[in-house]
Amino acid sequence: MNSFGRKFKISIFGESHGKSVGVTVDGCPPGIKLDEADFLGDLDRRRSGAKGTTPRLESDLPEIISGVFNGFSTGAPITVVFKNEDTRSKDYSKLVDHPRPGHADFTAFKKFNGFNDYRGGGHFSARLTLALVSAGVIAKKIIQPIDIHAKLKSVHGNTDIEQEIDDAIGKGESVGGIVECIATNLPIGLGEPFFDSVESVISHLVFAIPATKGIEFGSGFEAAQMYGSQHNDLIVDKSGKTKTNHAAGINGGITNGNELVFRIAVKPTSSISKAQGTFNMKTGKVENLMIGGRHDVCVALRVPVILEAITAIALADFFLISGMEKNQK
Amino acid sequence: MNSFGRKFKISIFGESHGKSVGVTVDGCPPGIKLDEADFLGDLDRRRSGAKGTTPRLESDLPEIISGVFNGFSTGAPITVVFKNEDTRSKDYSKLVDHPRPGHADFTAFKKFNGFNDYRGGGHFSARLTLALVSAGVIAKKIIQPIDIHAKLKSVHGNTDIEQEIDDAIGKGESVGGIVECIATNLPIGLGEPFFDSVESVISHLVFAIPATKGIEFGSGFEAAQMYGSQHNDLIVDKSGKTKTNHAAGINGGITNGNELVFRIAVKPTSSISKAQGTFNMKTGKVENLMIGGRHDVCVALRVPVILEAITAIALADFFLISGMEKNQK
Amino acid sequence: MNSFGRKFKISIFGESHGKSVGVTVDGCPPGIKLDEADFLGDLDRRRSGAKGTTPRLESDLPEIISGVFNGFSTGAPITVVFKNEDTRSKDYSKLVDHPRPGHADFTAFKKFNGFNDYRGGGHFSARLTLALVSAGVIAKKIIQPIDIHAKLKSVHGNTDIEQEIDDAIGKGESVGGIVECIATNLPIGLGEPFFDSVESVISHLVFAIPATKGIEFGSGFEAAQMYGSQHNDLIVDKSGKTKTNHAAGINGGITNGNELVFRIAVKPTSSISKAQGTFNMKTGKVENLMIGGRHDVCVALRVPVILEAITAIALADFFLISGMEKNQK
Amino acid sequence: MNSFGRKFKISIFGESHGKSVGVTVDGCPPGIKLDEADFLGDLDRRRSGAKGTTPRLESDLPEIISGVFNGFSTGAPITVVFKNEDTRSKDYSKLVDHPRPGHADFTAFKKFNGFNDYRGGGHFSARLTLALVSAGVIAKKIIQPIDIHAKLKSVHGNTDIEQEIDDAIGKGESVGGIVECIATNLPIGLGEPFFDSVESVISHLVFAIPATKGIEFGSGFEAAQMYGSQHNDLIVDKSGKTKTNHAAGINGGITNGNELVFRIAVKPTSSISKAQGTFNMKTGKVENLMIGGRHDVCVALRVPVILEAITAIALADFFLISGMEKNQK
Repeated sequence: MNSFGRKFKISIFGESHGKSVGVTVDGCPPGIKLDEADFLGDLDRRRSGAKGTTPRLESDLPEIISGVFNGFSTGAPITVVFKNEDTRSKDYSKLVDHPRPGHADFTAFKKFNGFNDYRGGGHFSARLTLALVSAGVIAKKIIQPIDIHAKLKSVHGNTDIEQEIDDAIGKGESVGGIVECIATNLPIGLGEPFFDSVESVISHLVFAIPATKGIEFGSGFEAAQMYGSQHNDLIVDKSGKTKTNHAAGINGGITNGNELVFRIAVKPTSSISKAQGTFNMKTGKVENLMIGGRHDVCVALRVPVILEAITAIALADFFLISGMEKNQK
Repeated sequence: MNSFGRKFKISIFGESHGKSVGVTVDGCPPGIKLDEADFLGDLDRRRSGAKGTTPRLESDLPEIISGVFNGFSTGAPITVVFKNEDTRSKDYSKLVDHPRPGHADFTAFKKFNGFNDYRGGGHFSARLTLALVSAGVIAKKIIQPIDIHAKLKSVHGNTDIEQEIDDAIGKGESVGGIVECIATNLPIGLGEPFFDSVESVISHLVFAIPATKGIEFGSGFEAAQMYGSQHNDLIVDKSGKTKTNHAAGINGGITNGNELVFRIAVKPTSSISKAQGTFNMKTGKVENLMIGGRHDVCVALRVPVILEAITAIALADFFLISGMEKNQK
Repeated sequence: MNSFGRKFKISIFGESHGKSVGVTVDGCPPGIKLDEADFLGDLDRRRSGAKGTTPRLESDLPEIISGVFNGFSTGAPITVVFKNEDTRSKDYSKLVDHPRPGHADFTAFKKFNGFNDYRGGGHFSARLTLALVSAGVIAKKIIQPIDIHAKLKSVHGNTDIEQEIDDAIGKGESVGGIVECIATNLPIGLGEPFFDSVESVISHLVFAIPATKGIEFGSGFEAAQMYGSQHNDLIVDKSGKTKTNHAAGINGGITNGNELVFRIAVKPTSSISKAQGTFNMKTGKVENLMIGGRHDVCVALRVPVILEAITAIALADFFLISGMEKNQK
Repeated sequence: MNSFGRKFKISIFGESHGKSVGVTVDGCPPGIKLDEADFLGDLDRRRSGAKGTTPRLESDLPEIISGVFNGFSTGAPITVVFKNEDTRSKDYSKLVDHPRPGHADFTAFKKFNGFNDYRGGGHFSARLTLALVSAGVIAKKIIQPIDIHAKLKSVHGNTDIEQEIDDAIGKGESVGGIVECIATNLPIGLGEPFFDSVESVISHLVFAIPATKGIEFGSGFEAAQMYGSQHNDLIVDKSGKTKTNHAAGINGGITNGNELVFRIAVKPTSSISKAQGTFNMKTGKVENLMIGGRHDVCVALRVPVILEAITAIALADFFLISGMEKNQK
């Protein structure tokens, strides 16, 4: 379904070239200061326009249509809507028979019996991440004093990110990257054993971000090459602080008060400027195709703010389930 | 919570040194042939005893106490219970003040205000994977003709796995590993965009397996180093078969009919035979401690069957949600 | 939470005097013919204006902002929004310290720490039933050929309904009523034993309709006065048709193919025109108060279409869970 | 599904003539004093044996197989199992072709394609209420100091209950009744507007009790005959105490601190001693049939403790969702 969360519950809706995209946040406690201006910072970080991102220009102005009264959350569901403005539907019309490689065109067509809105990816569009970022803005307010910071660590295997972007633009290519997210000031005790472990819930949300191919917590894939005596984090004081942090701040699915650290792998954008072979469903032949529309050279550039958002959403849900927001007052 | 699934819903319970562990599967369709013998094969693959696994010996005989009548599932909840027999609780009593490094002892104590059953990890024990494997046995029957095979690819960075196990035993160490899971014969259309993507649900369940540190689908972390033209999988026929499979058989969160492929990183077992520094919560000092009890040198040895189980559970849920079991008849 | 449903999932949002009210329907199958005109008939039945209903005049024009493309549902979430136009917030300002008897003013204030939007009942307003009716319009299309008809059976204990309305208006009073709902052409097998019985799910939704005080299925409260031999419905043919229908078409929580019949009790509107005692939270005294704003003399007049809607919503969820929509094609 | 609850989540399993029935309670806070003896009082109230109840004799001894350690809940799932002992399966064998009037035999057969365990009603048996009562015992401990008391108000329309039972036994009949439940010492603020109103959740659970035909809160069906000025409850002090309590302690779905009051209608037991017409699915003819097995003359006699249990379950879930258990300490 298009909703997530047990107590901080988000529901997203909308299409790339439909009237709007939006999100409903149900379960936000009353009394959180909130107005439309609060969203602008994170939305701006997400927006396209920088080198390497799509030239589609949207003002991305959020409209809060419910759940806020006199500048504070009321406890009722908060719905935030974004109107789509810069839609050029004609770009996509001929792609119906040519499912773009790497895109959801083929699976969406099959799953929804051909009724899916195929324009610009429709409901599968990365434009839906507007909804995630918006929910993240609200979540961040709830989980104070937790701080979350994500950043792009490398692109195409290179930490000189700008050079790789230029290179990819020159080649008509797209490139992937690695994004790391760190959360600090976490309380002990968020998360639950097994199915609602912190890692389970975060990874669940992470793979809702289009283009994600992998996630690792703390030592991650390197852990597979370590000895136990190297990997075990020694507790050094009664607060539970550890000397190393291979565990990423989580034991048995539950936060231990140390930093939460994880990294995700973002694949290169499926849409590329140069021609590529594409199967024609009507003729049954592979054709050389140029993909129209506008797209990112490196979608990973936009991912950090989205990653922060989903982390905040996951933590807000744990926070509210644990009743920790009561301790704040 | 200790349950998972929308239509094929599993609920697990039990502790390492309590009376039993078990699972309830709610939503299994009626008419699935099922008796206790069906569980033995996968339970045997999971059981300890091989070199590198814990010498704790349990017969692990499943008892079906509800939901099966005359050898077939009835449509009512199926509960499978395993009695704990070989429990030696005295091994653990002195660990209350010495939370073992890498274990959930500290977080469990904090989260549950000291009321957690700390014996052998209590509810956090890997013994609970008996419940996952059992649910997997039922799930595998539902999703036919899908085949799922997982195998251990490397241990401590080495594909000569036996050598690494010997080496670790000799050193009193534990080691991690990489496990790969492949599912074939998948229908097109399982999964949903965003929150219930196939990757989201599988990774959610994967991180319920103790010791998991990372997951990657298809090209995974390598995708971050690729160009779009390399990564995009070219469709080659009308069934949607692709030339490469970097997408791991999933586009937009939905299966495309190609193989589902993913790998997980398993950390070295936290319990090791040799002495290690351990914080004493009472004295506030680090002591050199030997961990008693019995444990695996390489828990990754036991993971393949568990990984198959959680994959089957995830797919069974998607299968039933999509009503695909109706097409089988 | 403000959402309901396992597979046909509705989420409602909005306030009486905020910007809008609306609903998101997630899980509607693709290919359902749908446009804004489809909503007008049921919305018109719900709308105020008739004698005995509030003079608040709203055009109640639905705007579909997602999930519909080329006149058909796409399989993505459908969001329908209604702008609030005729809001007169000043009517309500002085009621903050005078929680209206019978209303949620007091409980909302307490639950939401004073941050609730109190204007016109805010999120508790019967205006939210616009969202229910809209979801019902979509649900009715899914469950064809099931027919659902609800009607007002009595008002203030009298089947001459018009006379009672006139009488109540004359007295500055409000009156309650009994509404009956009947669904026909039901398949056998909707519903589940225990927690997801047909009665459980319908009654859950029924009590989401403001002013509902009771519900009874089939023989209902009269059953308590009957003998078993009178109450048992004799099956008369292989299709399961019964001679009587005290069971309301349900056995063990599951539809048996006969008519689904239930009745609900609707209390008199809490707002009345004549003065009534009202507690002043500041002074701690009871004052004689006239309630401003506009309100229904008999909210039961508007309930039939809402009752049909929630019945359709419940049945649509069962329909989709059972995969019965597949049998239609 | 066979589970219910958002934070205090119960999952029931078992069959009348299978190995056992049981319940898993997930979400019980740690530190609740609990052992098997705590269940005996309520189980005894539920047990058969009194005049008018089935002569089936079961010791009904609960076995806690997980979630309790050293006499306290641990925070992990609590599973309680009851072995079935006094099962006489031969009584039911010939009923396969003769679905008993008023029972779920026909619907269960159809829904589960003939794979249902038909012995003694199988999973539909009132024996499953053992699971509800057990979960209620745990719930009652969580919601202290709330008191819940249910009692049988009338049988067959008569408050002289014993006389009606004797009369029914003499006639080979069964009779229905009315049960009332009152909860006191409720905090203000449990419940949520619309779908998770207190009435919605309680009624959802109430209709999980076999034989329930109706429910009404406070003024209930009489409300339909009242004027608003009669029905509105006047607040008389700052705590929200009201002069009358037609609202049953609930406004807008949320508790207002006054007594929670509701009544349910219980139909006469479907099984009766005297012969009745029963359809033969094989011959297509109505036959005169005596129903073997053992059964209650008046199942309503056993309902009060079950009704208390489900009320406690509903309130415990609200309690934990609101984080109110934190205030207790």
